[in-house]
Amino acid sequence: MNRKQNAFYAQSGGVTAVINASAAGVIETARRRRARIGKLYAGRNGIIGALREDLIDTSRESAAAIRRLRHTPAGAFGSCRYKLQSLDQNRREYERLIEVFSAHDIGYFFYNGGGDSADTCLKISELSRRMKYPIRAIHIPKTVDNDLAVTDNCPGFGSVAKYVAASTREASFDVASMAETSTKVFVLEVMGRHAGWIAAAGAMASDAKCEIPVIVLFPEVPFNREAFLAEVKRKVRAHGYASVVVSEGVRGADGKFLSERGLRDAFGHAQLGGAAPVVAEMVKQELNYKYHWAVADYLQRSARHIASRTDVEQAYAVGKAAVEMALAGGNALMPAIVRTGNRPYRWKIAAANLRRVANVEKKLPKNFISANGFGITARCRAYLAPLMRGEDPPPYRDGLPDYARLKNAPVKKKLKGEFAL
Amino acid sequence: MNRKQNAFYAQSGGVTAVINASAAGVIETARRRRARIGKLYAGRNGIIGALREDLIDTSRESAAAIRRLRHTPAGAFGSCRYKLQSLDQNRREYERLIEVFSAHDIGYFFYNGGGDSADTCLKISELSRRMKYPIRAIHIPKTVDNDLAVTDNCPGFGSVAKYVAASTREASFDVASMAETSTKVFVLEVMGRHAGWIAAAGAMASDAKCEIPVIVLFPEVPFNREAFLAEVKRKVRAHGYASVVVSEGVRGADGKFLSERGLRDAFGHAQLGGAAPVVAEMVKQELNYKYHWAVADYLQRSARHIASRTDVEQAYAVGKAAVEMALAGGNALMPAIVRTGNRPYRWKIAAANLRRVANVEKKLPKNFISANGFGITARCRAYLAPLMRGEDPPPYRDGLPDYARLKNAPVKKKLKGEFAL
Repeated sequence: MNRKQNAFYAQSGGVTAVINASAAGVIETARRRRARIGKLYAGRNGIIGALREDLIDTSRESAAAIRRLRHTPAGAFGSCRYKLQSLDQNRREYERLIEVFSAHDIGYFFYNGGGDSADTCLKISELSRRMKYPIRAIHIPKTVDNDLAVTDNCPGFGSVAKYVAASTREASFDVASMAETSTKVFVLEVMGRHAGWIAAAGAMASDAKCEIPVIVLFPEVPFNREAFLAEVKRKVRAHGYASVVVSEGVRGADGKFLSERGLRDAFGHAQLGGAAPVVAEMVKQELNYKYHWAVADYLQRSARHIASRTDVEQAYAVGKAAVEMALAGGNALMPAIVRTGNRPYRWKIAAANLRRVANVEKKLPKNFISANGFGITARCRAYLAPLMRGEDPPPYRDGLPDYARLKNAPVKKKLKGEFAL
Repeated sequence: MNRKQNAFYAQSGGVTAVINASAAGVIETARRRRARIGKLYAGRNGIIGALREDLIDTSRESAAAIRRLRHTPAGAFGSCRYKLQSLDQNRREYERLIEVFSAHDIGYFFYNGGGDSADTCLKISELSRRMKYPIRAIHIPKTVDNDLAVTDNCPGFGSVAKYVAASTREASFDVASMAETSTKVFVLEVMGRHAGWIAAAGAMASDAKCEIPVIVLFPEVPFNREAFLAEVKRKVRAHGYASVVVSEGVRGADGKFLSERGLRDAFGHAQLGGAAPVVAEMVKQELNYKYHWAVADYLQRSARHIASRTDVEQAYAVGKAAVEMALAGGNALMPAIVRTGNRPYRWKIAAANLRRVANVEKKLPKNFISANGFGITARCRAYLAPLMRGEDPPPYRDGLPDYARLKNAPVKKKLKGEFAL
C-alpha cells in the first residue's frame, strides 16, 4: 500500500474546545506527506458525510485557515451522533462506505472521537480483512469526559478541567463576598454522565495558596442527602460559604439521576431540570441558606478562550501521530498519551491497540476520591494539575475571540443516487 | 476641611469582575495623597462594617497586594445587600454611623455600588447638613446591570458583556457542529432582572465576519410564545441551528416571570427553575428540536479571566476620580463615564450629581432593540462594541487565575457595645 492514496477524516460525538487542533494536526501532517497522501477529505458531519458521499475538500483551505483551526473550538467540519452497527447487523452501511471510499480512492481513515467512535473506527478497520477493502483506520482520541481507556488522558478534557476549576474559583470569590447578608452556597453543574473526571476538576479551584471550601458530588458516589447537607453546614460554619460542584450524572442510592427528581411542569410532565437546582433547593429547604446555581453545559466544552496549552498541544500531537501511524502501515490503532513524568510533567505518544480502547469506560479511580466522598485526593490532584497547565489564548477581534470558519467546499459526487440513513 | 482625615470605602450589592479595580483606584490614589488622607478604612461587608464598627485597615496591605486587586474579581472586603432607610425612618442607624465615623476621624465616604447604593451614599452625604457631621460622600458606580443613570455605562458591565458574547459565540460554534443529528437549539440564561443590557450583549456574538443566528429575549419585551417559536423555526431552517440568549427577567404579557411558570417539585412547591429550561422545553414540545441549555449565573459576573480591558480601566478610573473629587471638596457626587467619541472610542470622567443617579433605573432604549424584538440595532451595537474591547488577562499560577486575597486586618474598635442590625 505504498502508492499515493487519499485520506478521510471525520469528527464524531460531542465536540470540544480543541478537537480542531487535532484536525489541524492531521491536515498539516498530511500536507507535509504529499508523496503518500493525495487529498485529505473531511466528512461533513462525521461518518454521515462518508455514508452520504458528502465530502469536504480540505485542500481548498489555505495554510493560514488551517493554522487558525488550532485556536477554534467545536467541530469545523460538523460532527454527528451516529453509531455504526456491527458488520453482521447492518452490512449495507459497510458496503456503502466501501463504495464511497473506493470511488474517492480513500486508503486512510481517521476518526476523531470518544468511546463510541473508537468502536466505529474499529469496525472500519475490519473492512480491510472482512471485506477485502484495504484501509488504514486510526482513531484520534477526543472527549471532555476523559473516559477512554489506555491513554493517560483525553484531548478535550484538560481544557474543560481548566474552565471548571477557574469558574469555580471565580464564582467562589463572588459568593465569599456576598455570604454575610446574602448567598452562602453556590452550586455549579458540570458534565460527565458516567465518570466524575470533570467534577473532580472543580476541586482544583482550591489549592494551598488559595483555599476554597468546595464540595464535589461525583457520579461514582451514590448521593447521600444527609451526609451532603452535613458537609455543606460544616463548610458554611467554618468559612461562611461553600461551593458545590455537581456532576450531571449524580444518582441517588436508588440509581435515579438527581436531575430526574420530581420536577413537573404545569401539565404534570416530568422535567429534566438539571441537578444543580435540585441540590440548591435542598440546601435552602433544609439549611435555609440562600443559594445561587449555574449550569455550564456547552459553555464548558466550547470555552476555547481559556483552553489549557497542554491540552491544545496534545490534541495537535495525536492528530499528527495518527497520520504518521497510518503511513507507517498501522491499522486499528489509536495514538495514546503516555505520561512519562510528573515533576516536571512529561508525556509522549504511543500506539494503542484499538481493541483495548473501544467500548471501555474509564471511571475515576477510587483512590482519586477523598474518604468522605466529597473531594479529591493528593493523587488525583497530581494527575489533574499538569493537564490544566499553560494558556493558549486565541486572537481577539473587536473584543471577542476570532475563530476560524472554513469554506468547507464539497467534493464532486461520483456515485449515483442517495443513501438513506 | 483641609486638615488630614481618614477615609472609609465599602463595596455594596452584587459584586463584579472589576469592582476590586475600583478599590485599587481608591486605595492607590489615597496613598498618593497622604498629606490629606490619613488611613483608608474599608468596611467589612459593606456598610454593615461601618454600622458594626468592623473596619479593615487597608494600610496593612502591601503596594503589591493592592496592585493585584486590579486583576481580582468579586469584593475583596466583602459586600452586602443592606439598604439604609431614610433619616426619618431610622435615625438610629445614622447616629451610629456618625458615632463610628467620629471615633475613627473619618471625613471621606466612598461607596462602590449600584442604584440602591447610590441612594445610601446620598443619605450619608446629607449627614453633613442634617446632622452637622462634616463628610464628603462620593458614590463609585458599579453594576453588571448597566442600569445607572447619567453615566454612559457602568463599570462591571463591559466584562459581563464580553463574557456573554464570547460564551454565546463559543457555544454557537458547538451547536452548529452538532445540529445535523443532535442539538439544534442552545439556550443561555443571563442576568438582568429589569434591564436587557446583558442580554443585548449576547447578540454581539454575531458580527459581519462571523454570523450566528442569535435570538435575544429581553425583559423590556413581553414574551410572545408564538412569535418566539416562529423565529426559532425560521433560524433553524435557514442556518441549521439557533442560539437563544434569555434574560432571567423575561416576563409574559401577564407580567409573570417565565422562570416562575409552572415548575413544581414532588411536594407541589413552586420551583424557580430558571428561564432557560422553560424556553428550551417549549422549543422541544412545539418544534421537536433537541436542545441544550446553560445558566451562567455568577460565572458571568465573576469571570475576571475574560474581563474587558476598557472595563478594567474605567473601573480603576472611577475609583481614582472619586478620591480626587472628595479632595476637591465634592459631596453627593458620582464620577460618571462620559463618551466623547465612538471612532475611535474616547471617554472621560465627569462629576454627576448623586440626586440624578439614586433610585433611577436606565433600561435599554427602544431604539436599541430591533423591530421584531429579538435582536439589537446598529445603534446598540455601536454603543456596546467599545465597552467589550481589549483584553486584560490575570496572571496564572498552576493553570489557574492567580487572584489576590488580602489580609483584611481589623481596626481596633473604639466604641463600647455591639450594634444590632
